[in-house]
Amino acid sequence: MNTKKNITFIGAGNVATHLAKAFFNKGFSISKVYSKNIENARLLAQTTNAKPCNNLDKLYEQNHIYFVCVKDNVIADIVAQFKAKDSLIVHTSGSISMDIFRQENYTNYGIFYPLQTFSKTKATEINKVPFCIEANTEDNETTLIDLAKMLSDNVQLVNSEQRKQLHLAAVFACNFSNYMYAIADELLTKNNLSLDLLKPLITETANKIQNNAPQLMQTGPAIRNDNAVIEAHLKKLSEHPSYEKIYQILTDGIQNKG
Amino acid sequence: MNTKKNITFIGAGNVATHLAKAFFNKGFSISKVYSKNIENARLLAQTTNAKPCNNLDKLYEQNHIYFVCVKDNVIADIVAQFKAKDSLIVHTSGSISMDIFRQENYTNYGIFYPLQTFSKTKATEINKVPFCIEANTEDNETTLIDLAKMLSDNVQLVNSEQRKQLHLAAVFACNFSNYMYAIADELLTKNNLSLDLLKPLITETANKIQNNAPQLMQTGPAIRNDNAVIEAHLKKLSEHPSYEKIYQILTDGIQNKG
Repeated sequence: MNTKKNITFIGAGNVATHLAKAFFNKGFSISKVYSKNIENARLLAQTTNAKPCNNLDKLYEQNHIYFVCVKDNVIADIVAQFKAKDSLIVHTSGSISMDIFRQENYTNYGIFYPLQTFSKTKATEINKVPFCIEANTEDNETTLIDLAKMLSDNVQLVNSEQRKQLHLAAVFACNFSNYMYAIADELLTKNNLSLDLLKPLITETANKIQNNAPQLMQTGPAIRNDNAVIEAHLKKLSEHPSYEKIYQILTDGIQNKG
Repeated sequence: MNTKKNITFIGAGNVATHLAKAFFNKGFSISKVYSKNIENARLLAQTTNAKPCNNLDKLYEQNHIYFVCVKDNVIADIVAQFKAKDSLIVHTSGSISMDIFRQENYTNYGIFYPLQTFSKTKATEINKVPFCIEANTEDNETTLIDLAKMLSDNVQLVNSEQRKQLHLAAVFACNFSNYMYAIADELLTKNNLSLDLLKPLITETANKIQNNAPQLMQTGPAIRNDNAVIEAHLKKLSEHPSYEKIYQILTDGIQNKG
């Protein structure tokens, strides 16, 4: 199966932009870019030598792969409206099941999920981005894996159940760590200190686990069982009851008393 | 006051090694390196053209600055034993008060606290490390600030109370984020997935707050009030009651319901 087929993008946001440009740079032909807003479609289309389009009914062409890169809550609508039920079609979302295609009687479908936050203004090293692939048949799986490997060195087969686990783990590793940064920022600001003081340490904390198991990298008063410091910290947090509770429960967790 | 005076290190561990080498590279004369273990003293001394020493009583020389870079629980002993009560002496710990010097009748003392984790095998960009300075007199403060500025672009006056707040904030931003990584790692491993999949996202999460307030960078189901996903995640965590509790309390916190 020739993987260098034409690609059409449904959506012109961050994910579509990064993927379309990456495929274009690898010599793929980007056929069309669809967006409800023709101006958005045009913006991306003109950088990838594609045709802009704002009519789903005019999107179909034979032997194309369709990338649905729209917001999670719009995917179902797009998938229902799009007519080319026998084309290979994928979405790029981490949290929407593959069943969304089966329910609309598609015969060739899958997931092409880049596990990274993209922003339009910031370059991303696409070859480092993990791509999570799933497909309804082995043939489609092979096609999508080959495609992803054209872009990235980190391509993995991840089924829908695993993708859900991955999403849950990402909430801890990313959303919740960011919340930890936010609490630190608030505590510092209230004491006329800047988060700038902690930024090098935050970077180093994230760097250290790139090559070491995080469990082995745990530092701080909890793992040292430094009760004097823990008590002093809890006392300091008594004006922020919710942070005091968080401190206690995470300390218990680190000490395996959770 | 000439800041290019001689420096003697008490301790030969990670912090002593990084500071001694950094000062040596800036043209300072490192006079002696003390360690209880003469071999450790020798290892650091030979790279900085200093004399190794394992006898505190033989350490004193006029017009020297003494850097106490030993483990927190040994600082008090060293400070009590060392005889040169009129020399300028500092320790490099984030959590030990400056009072430890006053109580032993020193007359010139301060804190020279590099806010970074050092490891002997990994190079650190010392000029990016925040140095938190405190001293018992304005003269000593000036001396220590000038010294720190020879090493780093990020030097701040931080009093003992602020240093405690900083330490508390660092527990959230660093120790607790690392624990979030550890939970993610465990959830993934149990499902035959590797943390490698999340590493680029972890790096990006830490990078994003270098130039943006973390509160504005918050993403995920909690801030989106995506209750369907939150319920599904809590259900998935029901076999890990402590993680379920953590998920709930951090979600409440992000949603300001804490």
